[in-house]
Amino acid sequence: MKVKNRKIVYQGIEGSYSYLAGVKFFSKENKFIGVNNFKEIFKLVAENKADFGVVPIENSIAGSVYENIDYLNRYNVKIIGEHYLKIEHCLLGIKARMPFNIRMKYIKKIYSHPKALEQCSKFLDKYKNIEKIAYTDTASSAKLISELNDITLACIASKECAYLYNLQILKNNIQDFKNNFTRFLFIAQLNFNFKEYNLNKASIIFTLPHIPGSLYRALEIFAINNINLTKIESRPIPEKPFEYFFFVDFIFNSRINLDEIFLKFRKKVKKFKILGIYKNAKMWYD
Amino acid sequence: MKVKNRKIVYQGIEGSYSYLAGVKFFSKENKFIGVNNFKEIFKLVAENKADFGVVPIENSIAGSVYENIDYLNRYNVKIIGEHYLKIEHCLLGIKARMPFNIRMKYIKKIYSHPKALEQCSKFLDKYKNIEKIAYTDTASSAKLISELNDITLACIASKECAYLYNLQILKNNIQDFKNNFTRFLFIAQLNFNFKEYNLNKASIIFTLPHIPGSLYRALEIFAINNINLTKIESRPIPEKPFEYFFFVDFIFNSRINLDEIFLKFRKKVKKFKILGIYKNAKMWYD
Repeated sequence: MKVKNRKIVYQGIEGSYSYLAGVKFFSKENKFIGVNNFKEIFKLVAENKADFGVVPIENSIAGSVYENIDYLNRYNVKIIGEHYLKIEHCLLGIKARMPFNIRMKYIKKIYSHPKALEQCSKFLDKYKNIEKIAYTDTASSAKLISELNDITLACIASKECAYLYNLQILKNNIQDFKNNFTRFLFIAQLNFNFKEYNLNKASIIFTLPHIPGSLYRALEIFAINNINLTKIESRPIPEKPFEYFFFVDFIFNSRINLDEIFLKFRKKVKKFKILGIYKNAKMWYD
Repeated sequence: MKVKNRKIVYQGIEGSYSYLAGVKFFSKENKFIGVNNFKEIFKLVAENKADFGVVPIENSIAGSVYENIDYLNRYNVKIIGEHYLKIEHCLLGIKARMPFNIRMKYIKKIYSHPKALEQCSKFLDKYKNIEKIAYTDTASSAKLISELNDITLACIASKECAYLYNLQILKNNIQDFKNNFTRFLFIAQLNFNFKEYNLNKASIIFTLPHIPGSLYRALEIFAINNINLTKIESRPIPEKPFEYFFFVDFIFNSRINLDEIFLKFRKKVKKFKILGIYKNAKMWYD
């Protein structure tokens, strides 16, 4: 959904994976505002202080960003779209002309987000003598290396960070799993209306009556209509020990009557909230 | 399940919530071995280097310990029981006779695990001038305060830590939600056999064929038999982006034929693993 001159909030600094997902989805011609934490994104959008928010919801290796599922439940915002960003971690350092193997002998410390260090553990294990340092996020570690301007330091971040912070890509694609995707959701105020056709994906939240078979009976309406659940997560309700709310994504055929399905579904569940109806994104799209 | 003279591994040091859960379940007359991380518990038990392991699986406020669900999938171990530990965070400091309000004026820093600090945020917010310091775990922060022997320091940990590390309980029950429970699972080698009667809870892991309605059809057998699912979680399969395995707990009536149910269930799913059949624990039991 390309837009212009909007305020878009994301977590991190320029070059972060959230920033890259936001640029892909909304286009570069917007005002991107980096904040410190996910909660801030939801607050700013819900309070109409920003137009849109960029929210990572799950990574194909690490799993759901549970914190953000909880915020989707708590804040009054609307999901307007999604994007799958391929995560390609690179080893970055300051610019210097020398072969890779020689360069690696100079490096004493590698900075990055702990999850990125973990996702590159096969590569990093080859360099036992290099110290691995956990840092706030990947883009900030690139900024730091650039500022320190020290040949003994390197970081793990996106290739875009190399351009943004004037660094050299020492090695591309160093993550353990080649297929590493993060799925991002884009949020707006509840009253935001957009004209998009062929909407075919929905995200909902619900709670269930505490009786045997309640989940089964709730899912029936989707099964009957041949609807494919693409994600189901349960999250605790803090005030009620070991009771859960459910977060479900599903893909539907635009010919079905979604309103009728929701009407029937509502009778099987307790609390029910439609988070958004949007267009599904392709995973291989980049 | 009371045992004696067994090697029991848990994460943390004496006084940690894992340690307390282990003592409750197995009795004190065992050799409790604290390790640094959860993976080590699974490794030691799977490799027969320890008899039992203590594994936190979910907290009523923070949700599942997803890392441990992943290890249950990956390691060949068996669940033999569960325990719900009531988490009662206390503010601890070195011993000194003075009223609470005076004492709070002396305190400059409060140490604890980041989750414990978060779970006591209402209490901590009253003391804006006191620095909150994230530490490895609650019991270690108690040990630290005891060693530093400094009246300006405090920590958040269990009341048992006060006795273990010779500290004073400055304030009891300072967590935001009074009902804060952590559910622990106890694991053993696959070939461990125990004579327990009235087993009524089971934990299983499975994957589904990627077709609409597959989850619904898999849950049918439980609904028909009036079986109450007490937990359902999906976790990513790292090699297969956005495919999931499911972790399910359910309570059953000892009169049902569980083997027959599993036989039918197996036909509806792809991979299927029974993690354990055990006795359910009461949440209010302490």
